[in-house]
This record gives sequence, structure tokens and C-alpha cells, in this order.
Amino acid sequence: MSQSASIPTNSAPFSALPSIHTLLLEAKAKKGLTFDAIGKAIGKDEVWVASAFYGQAKFNAEDLQKLSEVLDLPHAELTAGLGEHWFPYRGLGSAVPTDPVVYRLYEGIMVYGHPIKALINEKFGDGIMSMIDCYVKVDKKPDPKGDRVVLTFDGKFLPYAKW
Amino acid sequence: MSQSASIPTNSAPFSALPSIHTLLLEAKAKKGLTFDAIGKAIGKDEVWVASAFYGQAKFNAEDLQKLSEVLDLPHAELTAGLGEHWFPYRGLGSAVPTDPVVYRLYEGIMVYGHPIKALINEKFGDGIMSMIDCYVKVDKKPDPKGDRVVLTFDGKFLPYAKW
Amino acid sequence: MSQSASIPTNSAPFSALPSIHTLLLEAKAKKGLTFDAIGKAIGKDEVWVASAFYGQAKFNAEDLQKLSEVLDLPHAELTAGLGEHWFPYRGLGSAVPTDPVVYRLYEGIMVYGHPIKALINEKFGDGIMSMIDCYVKVDKKPDPKGDRVVLTFDGKFLPYAKW
Amino acid sequence: MSQSASIPTNSAPFSALPSIHTLLLEAKAKKGLTFDAIGKAIGKDEVWVASAFYGQAKFNAEDLQKLSEVLDLPHAELTAGLGEHWFPYRGLGSAVPTDPVVYRLYEGIMVYGHPIKALINEKFGDGIMSMIDCYVKVDKKPDPKGDRVVLTFDGKFLPYAKW
Amino acid sequence: MSQSASIPTNSAPFSALPSIHTLLLEAKAKKGLTFDAIGKAIGKDEVWVASAFYGQAKFNAEDLQKLSEVLDLPHAELTAGLGEHWFPYRGLGSAVPTDPVVYRLYEGIMVYGHPIKALINEKFGDGIMSMIDCYVKVDKKPDPKGDRVVLTFDGKFLPYAKW
Amino acid sequence: MSQSASIPTNSAPFSALPSIHTLLLEAKAKKGLTFDAIGKAIGKDEVWVASAFYGQAKFNAEDLQKLSEVLDLPHAELTAGLGEHWFPYRGLGSAVPTDPVVYRLYEGIMVYGHPIKALINEKFGDGIMSMIDCYVKVDKKPDPKGDRVVLTFDGKFLPYAKW
Amino acid sequence: MSQSASIPTNSAPFSALPSIHTLLLEAKAKKGLTFDAIGKAIGKDEVWVASAFYGQAKFNAEDLQKLSEVLDLPHAELTAGLGEHWFPYRGLGSAVPTDPVVYRLYEGIMVYGHPIKALINEKFGDGIMSMIDCYVKVDKKPDPKGDRVVLTFDGKFLPYAKW
Amino acid sequence: MSQSASIPTNSAPFSALPSIHTLLLEAKAKKGLTFDAIGKAIGKDEVWVASAFYGQAKFNAEDLQKLSEVLDLPHAELTAGLGEHWFPYRGLGSAVPTDPVVYRLYEGIMVYGHPIKALINEKFGDGIMSMIDCYVKVDKKPDPKGDRVVLTFDGKFLPYAKW
Amino acid sequence: MSQSASIPTNSAPFSALPSIHTLLLEAKAKKGLTFDAIGKAIGKDEVWVASAFYGQAKFNAEDLQKLSEVLDLPHAELTAGLGEHWFPYRGLGSAVPTDPVVYRLYEGIMVYGHPIKALINEKFGDGIMSMIDCYVKVDKKPDPKGDRVVLTFDGKFLPYAKW
Amino acid sequence: MSQSASIPTNSAPFSALPSIHTLLLEAKAKKGLTFDAIGKAIGKDEVWVASAFYGQAKFNAEDLQKLSEVLDLPHAELTAGLGEHWFPYRGLGSAVPTDPVVYRLYEGIMVYGHPIKALINEKFGDGIMSMIDCYVKVDKKPDPKGDRVVLTFDGKFLPYAKW
Repeated sequence: MSQSASIPTNSAPFSALPSIHTLLLEAKAKKGLTFDAIGKAIGKDEVWVASAFYGQAKFNAEDLQKLSEVLDLPHAELTAGLGEHWFPYRGLGSAVPTDPVVYRLYEGIMVYGHPIKALINEKFGDGIMSMIDCYVKVDKKPDPKGDRVVLTFDGKFLPYAKW
Repeated sequence: MSQSASIPTNSAPFSALPSIHTLLLEAKAKKGLTFDAIGKAIGKDEVWVASAFYGQAKFNAEDLQKLSEVLDLPHAELTAGLGEHWFPYRGLGSAVPTDPVVYRLYEGIMVYGHPIKALINEKFGDGIMSMIDCYVKVDKKPDPKGDRVVLTFDGKFLPYAKW
Repeated sequence: MSQSASIPTNSAPFSALPSIHTLLLEAKAKKGLTFDAIGKAIGKDEVWVASAFYGQAKFNAEDLQKLSEVLDLPHAELTAGLGEHWFPYRGLGSAVPTDPVVYRLYEGIMVYGHPIKALINEKFGDGIMSMIDCYVKVDKKPDPKGDRVVLTFDGKFLPYAKW
Repeated sequence: MSQSASIPTNSAPFSALPSIHTLLLEAKAKKGLTFDAIGKAIGKDEVWVASAFYGQAKFNAEDLQKLSEVLDLPHAELTAGLGEHWFPYRGLGSAVPTDPVVYRLYEGIMVYGHPIKALINEKFGDGIMSMIDCYVKVDKKPDPKGDRVVLTFDGKFLPYAKW
Repeated sequence: MSQSASIPTNSAPFSALPSIHTLLLEAKAKKGLTFDAIGKAIGKDEVWVASAFYGQAKFNAEDLQKLSEVLDLPHAELTAGLGEHWFPYRGLGSAVPTDPVVYRLYEGIMVYGHPIKALINEKFGDGIMSMIDCYVKVDKKPDPKGDRVVLTFDGKFLPYAKW
Repeated sequence: MSQSASIPTNSAPFSALPSIHTLLLEAKAKKGLTFDAIGKAIGKDEVWVASAFYGQAKFNAEDLQKLSEVLDLPHAELTAGLGEHWFPYRGLGSAVPTDPVVYRLYEGIMVYGHPIKALINEKFGDGIMSMIDCYVKVDKKPDPKGDRVVLTFDGKFLPYAKW
Repeated sequence: MSQSASIPTNSAPFSALPSIHTLLLEAKAKKGLTFDAIGKAIGKDEVWVASAFYGQAKFNAEDLQKLSEVLDLPHAELTAGLGEHWFPYRGLGSAVPTDPVVYRLYEGIMVYGHPIKALINEKFGDGIMSMIDCYVKVDKKPDPKGDRVVLTFDGKFLPYAKW
Repeated sequence: MSQSASIPTNSAPFSALPSIHTLLLEAKAKKGLTFDAIGKAIGKDEVWVASAFYGQAKFNAEDLQKLSEVLDLPHAELTAGLGEHWFPYRGLGSAVPTDPVVYRLYEGIMVYGHPIKALINEKFGDGIMSMIDCYVKVDKKPDPKGDRVVLTFDGKFLPYAKW
Repeated sequence: MSQSASIPTNSAPFSALPSIHTLLLEAKAKKGLTFDAIGKAIGKDEVWVASAFYGQAKFNAEDLQKLSEVLDLPHAELTAGLGEHWFPYRGLGSAVPTDPVVYRLYEGIMVYGHPIKALINEKFGDGIMSMIDCYVKVDKKPDPKGDRVVLTFDGKFLPYAKW
Repeated sequence: MSQSASIPTNSAPFSALPSIHTLLLEAKAKKGLTFDAIGKAIGKDEVWVASAFYGQAKFNAEDLQKLSEVLDLPHAELTAGLGEHWFPYRGLGSAVPTDPVVYRLYEGIMVYGHPIKALINEKFGDGIMSMIDCYVKVDKKPDPKGDRVVLTFDGKFLPYAKW
């Protein structure tokens, strides 16, 4: 018997998302699928899929076709809400996150951000690490002292133009 | 001929740091050493060393001893400023970073933070990824289409207590 | 005759919570149960129960089963709203609390936070007190000059990683 | 041989404190005294002493006399800076703390603050827990799985006036 | 013929209040009663009554009984919304008030707050004036050059604990 | 033997004041005078004097003359710093006060501000209570259960213009 | 044929206004009346009328009577929404306006505010220009190089009380 | 005998101004000149002169020449500080002014800003009132009930481009 | 078969717009028209059209007529919502944009804004570049290393008035 | 005779810049050179040069060599301050600019930012316009109705990665 969904996208910080995203998250919960399983079904990585489910990435027509199949959702509804004319309005939640999981990531930037900048400058010169041409991974690394989360950002270095 | 240092720690956002950190950064610049070279000399990773140079980590007595040697700085001065009684007051810069390099890291959290939380919850359950028991790496990955920065956070998963 | 509930979760700061939490709070009010009584019924401490009722902790399947019994709430509804796929989005209210009860707690941190940090560093070294592996208690201590609230946080010390 | 102090009170967030506090912290560091040792010498608890060293509590004339003895500081200087006419301007650091140690305490309030209020109201009625008539303790509790910090606030309950 | 109410509690800053407060304010308007008249009917001061009508104080069971009589409101509805289980979430409006009447009060604190603190410290020592054990009065003082508002806060002095 | 002053006007929030105010506060401390004593000497109330000492009111030429006498300060210096051409830049401290004494006053406005507005409107009509044509008093009221601070604002009602 | 109204008072920043104001603005649009025409009909200036339409001033009973006639609106509805018991909650929009028209006015204060204060102090002494006893006018001044807006504030000078 | 100046430009909000402005204000105070007198001497209006003295307008070479004469200041110093290469960085003080004189002006915009926009749109169409091509006047209007400040902004209407 | 629209104007930051703009954007999506195509149909540039679709510019009567034709929308509805009486309330989204596309534009101002001001002052003197009499263009410039966006603002220089 | 410089980099918002930038700006002013002239001397565009003078771009070794020649500044000093080890900490001024020139640019993004995003998405798909690989130009376009500023950003389009 299917369990109904429990994704309160109508409450903060998800209330800023179009309602179509609730549909996706509820369908995932009902099907009992992981992001990894959905990712495999549509040929994408689980982090990218999760990003798209939270309105932070854009499915193309082929993605939506496969998605409607794996989630048993009407293709027309997905296309109406997330089709060709829709583009993500990225960025979710308040400027300083309050949820402890997201805050820890933010704290990582507050504490290690300038050291990381110093190393990027030292190794690559004057420029940035792209967050556009960037892949993100979340891995589980078993450890007898307690499993570890390995979070990887793999972004292209972009040198500053001079003119 | 030695080049004098060019590390404006007296200007934003570094003006919040104790002046001893300027001494470290200037000595590094005069010696022409990379963070990696200093790290190898004192037996620590380059990101950790950069963090300590920016006041985000604590050298112990042995670190300070080696540091005074590799940087030709008076041991007493390092101990006076960064010794047993000093503890980092971590967190550097404004709540929303303005420098584009650091902002891109912040944007990474704004865009991918909630998807990452969703995956940590899905894979590990209710808890967080520690930023205390956490290692950070900055690697350069050569790529014919443009070198890439690979940034890794490896942090212990901590489940929420129930009582 | 039962008294209906008076928990305005549709008003600030509780409007950020999923509506299922209103259901819990109303059922508690109708039953006239204290958090302690509910805690005893489900085998948890009253502070943890209150935290979960305000969306700050996660019930597991067994908790929800017992909760549906003690509150006479449909199990399916609880599972749909707070089941396996739901994870708390923790943090409630504005950055600086305005309610005087919560503000006093905040003021405690503004006034005693740095002294407490100094003592944690002095006693334990460089690290933090965990708010994840942490138990919270609220006790009433009778006192002829006026009863006292004894608030205890019991959290694991986590030393900073060096690498 | 005395170690010189390493307390950067001239940097954030301590730059808001009168310079006399630097004198106290440096003298403590040079003497190699813990807050507990100073507390025992002047007949006060260590948390209260740490609070006073960080400008969050007021020494009386007798405290200053003993303090000048235990720290070998000129009594006149202490009296000039912290004497009868000086009163603490309490509250230290930014509204949302950035240092991870202090932030965890703040997070404790963000996550558990409303549940704590609910329990105070449930147990005591309409009123607050005083942060003025309040004692704070920081204890170290040995634990084979990792030592724990036990933080206690013991504050008088104050019922709201009705008139 | 009764005039219907004109209290826009569904608009800012009153939208944060539970809807039961709209009911109270509308009933008051329909009855054409002043806060003083209601206060006399239930044995409370007008400022306290106004505070309770704006969600800033808590009626007890006896208050609600009298209130239902004087306002011709169903007792059950008042008890359901404001009964035993409801406690005020105090604090109304933005951190810096925008309405000129409320702003003037705020300006009074910005301009005279530190001088008042200096006098409290000078006259009472290190401590605060309680806003919990505090009575507030708003009086009209006729004056040929223009009537005056006399606003009085009468709060208990609370000395800081030392321990 | 004179006691030297202990008024850290070079630290927050007083660093925004012109340095002449430090001179006044130090002279007061050295003389061991209360604001009331100074007020009597120059023919003004103590709250007004305290306000002027903290840069929130303007001494006229006669006030400065008397002030130089009672405080043994060079008249020329007072005139140079606070004379005819100087006008107060009123407002002291951050938008939300952090010191508990000042915060309690602020909290008084957050909690009772809208009820007070409701009563001013009810009693006087559409207008404000002036903070310009306003007298402020701080009285000590002995009470066996603990002395009380009685704070009074006596301000002219100003009706809104219609045109 | 009448044109229906086009006043999006349900969108920012007008969503903070009671809905009765939408009614007024729509009726004005349907009638095709200017604020000046309405002002002439009810014997008030156009700026005052516009202020009242945007919730920033209070109509009295006579104003509402005339208003219901000129706008063909039911008198009872106006009285219910804006009658004796309603008082403006003044201040509209965010602290720093974003609309370019309103921002320019704000910029006028940021740029010329302190010079204007200097001139008010120089010409009138220590006090303020009232915004309560103040008339505002918006005039159109034809100019061959482009018509000009002449904006006038005519406010009473209020000297600071001394006591 | 000349009175020395009393213009604390080294304190807030004037600390953001280049020090040359202190020189101007002190010279004005020493000479005992009004802005009007200086304006007449250099052929400019008093408000414009006050604006330039507070760093909000730019003197040209001829202005500086006359200014050095009327204030007996070295021409070279004025030119060095305010000459050809210097341009105003306009905007003074915090986003929401705290000084009551400046706040009242700000309040004028918060209360009357949207009504004024409505009238500008009604009378001129879609566009703004320029604060660049704008004249500001501060006049004193004697009135038996109390003198009045008449503040006038006379700015060009600029229609929005369409393309 | 027509594709329905996918423009979530009911979610952030578009929820501040009047609902008529949703109608426009949905009609555009259903028709499959580009802003350029609509611009050509009504004789306007694509950037101006996009601005008007997002509530940042005002259509005149003729524009609305053509728009109702090209989008097959009822003319009366467009006129009711965007007609003579409606004026844009410009400015969309939070003060610091979070969407990466808009943030990059903002970052352009944070990084190059002061240099641009320096050049405008150097080339034109003291004044501003108008954003009212300004044309904006977005062009696609093919480039073998990756197409480029060429964004042009063409605004009138406005010299500051002196008076 | 040389004119001394008038660039108040010690005042807001330039106080955040390392002092070496003051040296550059003063030397430029003494020499009476435009950014264009300096740009031609060192082979760079004037906007890029202005950006580097305000700390927003990085000179390489060759640039510094030529700069020391054209400005008659000691090469060693430039290298010490801006050499190999220095990297720009980009972003200047507050989050919302207050200077009217810079504010107009910011307003351009607030008003046209979302329409520009819509067009970039429509023309290029899901991605951003780079502010790293971007050229900026400020041109003067003579116009009989008033000269115009033509501001151009030419940035590479970067498509979002999918993975």
C-alpha cells in the first residue's frame, strides 16, 4: 500500500517554489524512490536531480518525458509547469540559512572561504571557480568511527578578463 | 632579492584579524613560499595551513615551533600572539560575501544547499554533516577545456540525539 | 466536555510550520495533556516532545504509532505528514527573537556566549559543544524567593579536526 | 619564564570593549591562571569571572582589590577603569554570532527556544525566565564516548504583572 | 443602529495576530466601548486591556468569562482561542516601528535610553528595570497650550545576580 | 584623594559621540557628582542633564558657564566643543539595543507600543505624542518587595494637520 | 462605458493596506476622477486626499459622507471600514524605497537631509520641523526646458523642551 | 575674540566625510558666518552651500577661490582637497536616519511618498521628479502660532524612455 | 496542440506583481512568441517589451490594443488591469538578487560601479547617467570560443543643478 | 605648478581599500592624467585601468613596471603593495549603493534585471552572462538634446552544467 507524501513544500523555505515542485516531491515519496533511482532512470546524477526537484535546475524535454514515466505523472502537466518557457529562479532560503544542515555548509564557507580563495589564487591566479560549469557530488564514506559525508564541488576555473 | 609582502590585512575583511596574522602572511610572501610548502614543512595540509594563516584554525606549540623556523620569525612573538591562550574567533567577512571568488562558494550553498540536505537526510537519516570534524581540500584538475578546481569537504555525519 | 484547542499556529512565527503541527498541538490541547504526559506515553523526554511538536525534531515510525494512540489521531494522517520522507527544517522565528521569553534565552547567549566559549576553550581546548548530540532539559526548582527555571544543555564536545 | 598574553581584544568582536579588559586578559595569560583559579581567589564562580573579564559583569570594590592582588595589577588602574562609576554595557558580538562555538549556543535557542517557552508556560504560567537573577555554569562531564559540556542556566521565574 | 467594526487586523502589522483578536476588536467597536469601560467591567486597567486585545497579555478564565459578557461574545469561542493553552507571543510590528505614533515612543528610547540607563545605574546600581513586573499607564493631562500625554512605566528594579 | 574616571566613551556605543562628552563624564566621575547634583547646580532636571552629557541635548551659553564652574572645566574648551554652532546629532546605539537595561525599554515599546497608540488615538484622536516637547523623569519608588523604577514621559499631544 | 479600475492594491507595497482602500481607488478610477476633483468635492487638498486614499490620513465622518456621494459608494461600507474606530497605521513600503519615483524623494533626504538639518538649526535653533503639523503640496510648474515638479513641505518648527 | 569651532565631523555620521570638510565647517564657525552669508559671498544659495559643506555638492574653481577669501583659508589647501579631481560621494548617514530632525524628513517620504508618486503620475504621466536637476530651499515663515519651516524641492519631471 | 504556459508568477520574486502580468506571460508562452516577435508586432524593442511584461514599464492605449491582438487577449481585461490609471511600481526582487543570472549583473555594479562613476565624472563632470531616459539592449554576439551577451545601457547624462 | 591630489580614499567607501590605491589615485591627480591616458601608456582600456585603481583588478608585473614609469612612482613600492602575492578582494561599497551615480546603475539592475534574465534565457537557454570573462566600456555619445553615456557589458554566455 502506498504511503502518501510528506513534503511540506507549502511551508518555509519551499513556499517560494512553483507548486509543480510539490507534485514532483510528492510523487517521489509515493513511489518510495530515492533521488539516485530517479537519476538512473533519467540518466542524471542524484544531486542534479535533487537540485531540479527543488527548482534549482532545468529539465529538458527528454528529461520531462522520462520523469513522467518513472513518477507516473501526466506528461502534459510537467510540460505545462516546467517546459520550454520555464527557467529556474535559483537560490532557496534566507541569506543566512537557519536549518542546521544547511547552516553547516554555510559555516564551511564563512570559515574556509577566504583560505580557499587564497589557494585558488595561489594555484590558478586571478579568477574564480565557476558554480555554473560545476558538478556537485554527495557521497557516503563508511568509517568505523562514524560514516562520513564527502561533498565535492568540481568547477571550471575562469580567469578574469583583462582588456 | 626578496620581494616585500603585499597582503593588505589592515583592510576589509581582514581588519578583524589580530595583527599577528599580518606577520605570518608577510613572512610567507617574503619567503616566496606556497601554503603547500609551509604545510609540508610543518606536517599539515595546505588548506589547513591557509585557514590558520587567516585566523580560522589553531596552531599548537609544535606547529608554532616549526613555523618560526620555516618563516624565520621569532618564536616568542608567535607564541605571544598565537600561543596556548589564544583560540580562533572563526568566521571571516560579511554574512553575504562580496568578493566574487567567495561569493561563488556561497552561491553554491544557496543553490545546492537544500538538495544536499535532502540527500544527506535520504542517505544518512536525520542529522548533519560536521564542519568541525571535517577536512577540506582544494585540488587543481587539468582539463583541456580549462583547468578545474575540485573542492572537497569530508565531514563526519552526526545523527541528532533523541532523549 | 472537551475544550477546543487554542494554538494559533497559523500566525507568526508558527506559520512557517507544516499544518500537521497544528493538528498535533490542537489534539494535545483537546486532550488536556502536558508534554511530559505525552513524553511518558511515547517514551521520550518532554523537551524532545515539545521540540518535535514545533517541527524541530523527527518522530520515527514507532513514535508516530504511539502518538496516534495517545492523541487519538489517525495514524495515516500522521504518517503522511511526518513519515519517513519528512525531515525537520529546523530553526523557528526571526534571527533576533521578539517574544520576551525567547529573547531572554537569546540575551543569555549575547551576554554569556563569549565567556562560555572562553571556558569551553580553557577546559576542553579548540572545539565546540555540539547542538546535535545534545540533550536539553527544563526543570522547575521550587524556591521560597520565587521558583526557578533550570535549563540544561548537555552536549558532546567536538574537537576541531586538523589535517 | 612568563609567557606573554595572546588575547586579541583589539580585534573583532572584542574591539567594542574598553581597553581595561585587555589588561585583565593579558594579566591572566601572563600569570597562567584559569578563570576557576581567579574565581577561587576572589570568591566567585568561574563563569561569572569570565563574564566580568569580557565586560559582561561588574566587579565591586572588594572584587577589584582582590583582583589586583591575584593578577599583580595596580589597584588604582583597575579602579580608574572599572570602579564605582563604570557599569557594563552588556552584549558582545553581532546579532547572529559567526564563531562556531557561540553560534551553536545561538542555534540551541533557534531550535529549542520555542519548545522551551512552551514548557515554561506549561509549568509556570505566563511569565519569563530571568537572565538577570540567573546563574550560569559550564561543567565538564567525562564520557567514554567523548567528554560532554554541561551548560546550565538557573534563572528565577518572573510572572507577568496584571494591573 | 450599530456601526460595524473598522479594525483592519488582517493588514500589517496585525496580520501576525491570531484571528480571535480581530473578533475582540470588532466586538469592542460594535459596542462602542472604550478600553477603559471594558477594563472597569473586567476589573483591569485600560492599558492592560488594550495590551491583551492586541495579543500582548493573557486573559485568565475569569477575565474571559467577564469579557464574553461585556462584549456579547460566545464564551466557548473565547476560551477556544485564548484559553488555558494559549500564551501570548509578545512583540508586535517591525524592529524599527514605522507608524509615527509608535516611532515617537521608539525615538524616546533611542534618544533617552542611555541617559535613563545611566540614571538607573546611578540610583539603583547594576541591574535593570523589569518589563515583566511592570505597570504601564497612559494619562491625558489637560494643558491650555495643548493637552499632554503622560506615559508611565512602573517596573521593579532587578539587581544582577553574582555567583 | 580624587578617583579617576571610568567612563569608556571610546568604546561602543559611545564612540559615535564627540570627544568633549568624554571630558564631561570624566569630570563628573572625578568630582563624584550625581546627575542630580549637577542638575541642581545648573538649574536643570537630572534626566535632561544626563541626556546632554550623552550628546542628546544642547546646553546653552548659560548652562555651559555654570557647567564649567561645577565641574572645574575650562569654559573655553566647553564652548569650543558644545557652543553656539554645535547641535546634537541625536540617537545613540544600534537600532535594536543590546544592553539589557536599554533593551528592556525597547521591549516595552515592542510589547506595549501598539496598545499605547490605540489608547492615544482613543483618548486624543488622530495624532501623536511629541518626543520633542516632552519631559522625561526617572524616579526611585521604595517598595518592600523591591524598589521600583518609575519612568515617566510627559509629551504634548499633536493632532495631525488636515489641509 | 465605464473603464474598470487598475489599481493593484493586492500587490506590493499596497498589500499592507486594509481592503477598503482598494475600494476607494477602484471607485476613483471608474469615475475617472482626479485627486484634485475629489479634493474639491470634499473640501480638501489633493495631496491630503491621495494620502487618505493610501491609508496615510484619516477621514472624519463628514469626509466619509461626501466621499460616498462623489464616488457613489455605500456610506455604510465606508463607515464600517474607515469610521470612528479606525486610525491610520502610517508608513508604506520598505525602509529604502525601490520604486524610482519614491526613491528619488528618499535620495533627496539622503543627500540634502543633513544640510537641511544644519539650516533648520542655524535659523531656528535646536528643534525639528514637524511632519504632523505639516502641509504637503505637489505643483506642476510649466517650463520650456521641461515641466517641473514643485514639492513643498510646510511644517511647524518645534523647539526641544528643556526641563 | 573668535570662538573656536564646534563641529564634530570626526564623529558619526560625519566621519565618512573627507577631513577637508571639517576645515570648512570650523572656519565657518570661527568666522561666525551663516550659510546664507557664505552663499551671498560666493553667489550661491544657502542650501546648496550647506550641501557642499557636508560633501554633497561640488565647488568649481571659482567657488573655491571665493571660499578661500570669505573663510580666510589657504586656496591651495582647498584646491588640494576639493579641486578638479574630487567628486562628491553623495549620501550621508544610515539608511534610516536616527537624528529626529532628519528622521522627520524621512518620515515625510514614508508617509507621503506613495501619495506624491500617485499625484506625479496623475499630473505628469509615467516618469520621475529629478533629484539631480533639482533646487532645494529652506525658508522660515513667521507664524503667530509658531514659526514654520517651508521646505521646497523644485525638480524637473523626466518621462520614462520607451524604445 | 497548444502548450500551456509555465511562468510561475505566483512564486517569488514575481508574487509582488499584479496578476495581469501572469496573464501576459502565459499568453506569450501559449502563442510560443519571443519578446522580439511581440516587440515587432507592437513597434517596440524586445527589452522594453520584456520590462513591461514584468511590470517595469507602462503600455499606452495603443500598445494595449496591439497587444490584445497579437496575444489574443480580451482588450477590456488588459485595459482594466494596465490601463490609464495603472502606473508601474518598479523594482523587482530582493535588494541583493539571489538568482545567479541577476546576481551577475548586480556583481557587475559592485565591482565596476565606482570605476564607472570615476569615468563618468572624468568625462562628463559632476552628474549622473539617467536610468529614466535610458535605452537597454541585450544582444547575442556569436563567438567561436562561446557566444557572448552584449548588454548596453544608453542613458542621458544629467549634470547636477547648482543654485 | 602641480596640483596636489584630492582623492579621499581614507573616507567611505574607499576606506576598505589598501593604502597603495590612494598612492595611485594621488599620483594620477598630480600628473593630471586621465584613465584613458594611463590606459594607453600601459596598453589597457580605461575602464579596466579605473577598476584596477579602485582595487577591482590585478596588475601583472609588466603593468606595474609601466605604471611606475607613467606615474613616476617607485617600482618597489608598487610591487610591494600590488605584486605577485596580492589579489583583489573585489566588491566596493554597501550592498545598496547610496551615491546617486552608482545607485542609478543599481536601479538599472533592479528594474531591468529580470527582463534581461528573461531575454538571456530566451536567446541562449539556461545559463548566465559571465562577469569574469567580461569587458566593460563607458562611452560618451554626443547628442544635441544632451550627451549620453553608453555603458556596455560584453560577457561570455555560460550554460549550466548538467551531470
